[in-house]
Amino acid sequence: MRVVLESPLDMHLHLRDEDMLKSVAHFTSKCFSGAIIMPNLVPPITTIDDIKAYKNRIKEATKGDDFEAYMTLFFKNSYDYDFLKEAKDVVKAIKLYPSGVTTNSDGGVSDLDIENLKETLEAMSELKLPLLVHGETNGFVMDREREFGVFYEKLAKSFPKLKIVMEHITDRHSVKLLKEYENLYATITLHHLLLTLDDVIGGSLKPHYFCKPIVKTYADREVLQELALEADAKVMFGSDSAPHPKNKKERDSGAAGIFSAPVLLPALCELFEKNDRLENLQKFVSNNARDIYDIDPIKKEVVIEKREFIVPENLKDIVPMFAGKKLSWRCESE
Amino acid sequence: MRVVLESPLDMHLHLRDEDMLKSVAHFTSKCFSGAIIMPNLVPPITTIDDIKAYKNRIKEATKGDDFEAYMTLFFKNSYDYDFLKEAKDVVKAIKLYPSGVTTNSDGGVSDLDIENLKETLEAMSELKLPLLVHGETNGFVMDREREFGVFYEKLAKSFPKLKIVMEHITDRHSVKLLKEYENLYATITLHHLLLTLDDVIGGSLKPHYFCKPIVKTYADREVLQELALEADAKVMFGSDSAPHPKNKKERDSGAAGIFSAPVLLPALCELFEKNDRLENLQKFVSNNARDIYDIDPIKKEVVIEKREFIVPENLKDIVPMFAGKKLSWRCESE
Repeated sequence: MRVVLESPLDMHLHLRDEDMLKSVAHFTSKCFSGAIIMPNLVPPITTIDDIKAYKNRIKEATKGDDFEAYMTLFFKNSYDYDFLKEAKDVVKAIKLYPSGVTTNSDGGVSDLDIENLKETLEAMSELKLPLLVHGETNGFVMDREREFGVFYEKLAKSFPKLKIVMEHITDRHSVKLLKEYENLYATITLHHLLLTLDDVIGGSLKPHYFCKPIVKTYADREVLQELALEADAKVMFGSDSAPHPKNKKERDSGAAGIFSAPVLLPALCELFEKNDRLENLQKFVSNNARDIYDIDPIKKEVVIEKREFIVPENLKDIVPMFAGKKLSWRCESE
Repeated sequence: MRVVLESPLDMHLHLRDEDMLKSVAHFTSKCFSGAIIMPNLVPPITTIDDIKAYKNRIKEATKGDDFEAYMTLFFKNSYDYDFLKEAKDVVKAIKLYPSGVTTNSDGGVSDLDIENLKETLEAMSELKLPLLVHGETNGFVMDREREFGVFYEKLAKSFPKLKIVMEHITDRHSVKLLKEYENLYATITLHHLLLTLDDVIGGSLKPHYFCKPIVKTYADREVLQELALEADAKVMFGSDSAPHPKNKKERDSGAAGIFSAPVLLPALCELFEKNDRLENLQKFVSNNARDIYDIDPIKKEVVIEKREFIVPENLKDIVPMFAGKKLSWRCESE
């Protein structure tokens, strides 16, 4: 058996930079037609020159593959209409990080008062530049996304023409908001579809399943699965694949992030097949995103075969999601 | 300033065996007059000969200190009255582990049907041997102790003369049960008094704060603190100090357990002082336990001084709780 996907897209991806970029980029560019690239480098990407240069480095790292890197800028409330108009030639969206909630988010927004963000968000709205949001407060780790809901509602109401993407949603409360507000959209990761907190701390400690936002309860996972398996039109696949070297994960003060890029489409096939929803996978991994972002990705057929795939234990010095485990699907290019 | 504690007791302690026992035992025997020693070695301790031999190895490892190891057996429903009567000369209690819930608990009780445990528990009741319980189900990690409450209630009702100690309680629901049933008692650890899940996974990943049962919410911690700070007569201090070598903690599939023995009394002084309850510490770390267990510990005065103490980063190959951090109290013997 095989599944042929047309121009699959990963709508939330961390490619890092330099050697790490060179190590990880091809796992995505082989199997996807395009990806939304997160701007939280050190320092974060906030200028047009920097975004152009980063896009070129990604082009170099993915040479030989039909792949488009859709770029994003790191949100600053100093961005004005003229700047954003120029930026729009290079970027597809702007990513907002509340300060301190995840890897390299220290320069993020520390005051979530709508008034302070208004000028920038109105300009984005006018320019039809989507706002991508890491939606977490600094509260108790299991409540952060739910608590952020108030802010999602304020945003949705204050900027009704702005497309707001709740990135990597993890919590059933976000799904309620998604259904309630027309201009809210969401990405869902593979790991939030498959894991719960039990996988991280329920048995022995699993640093390679440690990520932000943390994976939640069985009830949360069920609601996310429903949404993805039905390929709800407001939901896109976004992996949040976020590589760190093994020695930054398996140590005291370990880094948050799951390197899922090497297993994404096989594991999604497994999940959708198990639930008898393979026919919805195309929408979830591509068509919905095309509609929401109004993009026309590079034509590319990606074949996933039902054939055993043992996930490597290490890819250079990075441990991928499901390292050493057996999947029943694999990308043909593997 | 100094606090003089009379015969402090640690009512829940893992001393391990062999080299590990030799490395860790003196941290407790220096500062405590006695401790309840957990029997979950590999294999667990289930015979009188084994418990005598283990007690001798502990005596050897704590030589020179005024210290008594109060021994426990690993619960088996094959223990009958005659066996337990003989055991009572050597052991102070029996520890019940549901199968698979923590380190070396695989041989524990897999069927929590009271009928299957009845003969042993009735004999213990008659012999006034307390039952110590690791109270967790195999459910979702944040709900395990709450779910176990049903079993605590059944035990308390079925064996009204049996002293049942809910070990290392972590959850506000257990505190309700404690207050409701006369024959339920509890130990509380230092780490469940000081930490929440945010300390483990709320920032970067902290393997040295990973333990079973996992630390819970702020609301849970608050209720535990109230109980300890008031030195409620049904509550005893039990550290659950559980050493693992650093390379078993900082890795994939990391081990659960916090090595708190080197910081216990200083950190407790800090907590009780901060809350203006230093006068209750003596009851919490000794007198309550004497009454509940009906024991008369070795007379020993332990002095804790208000003087800066930088916790060592490593103790041989074990990373202690609060490694590298500064405490404002230290044991005089330090």
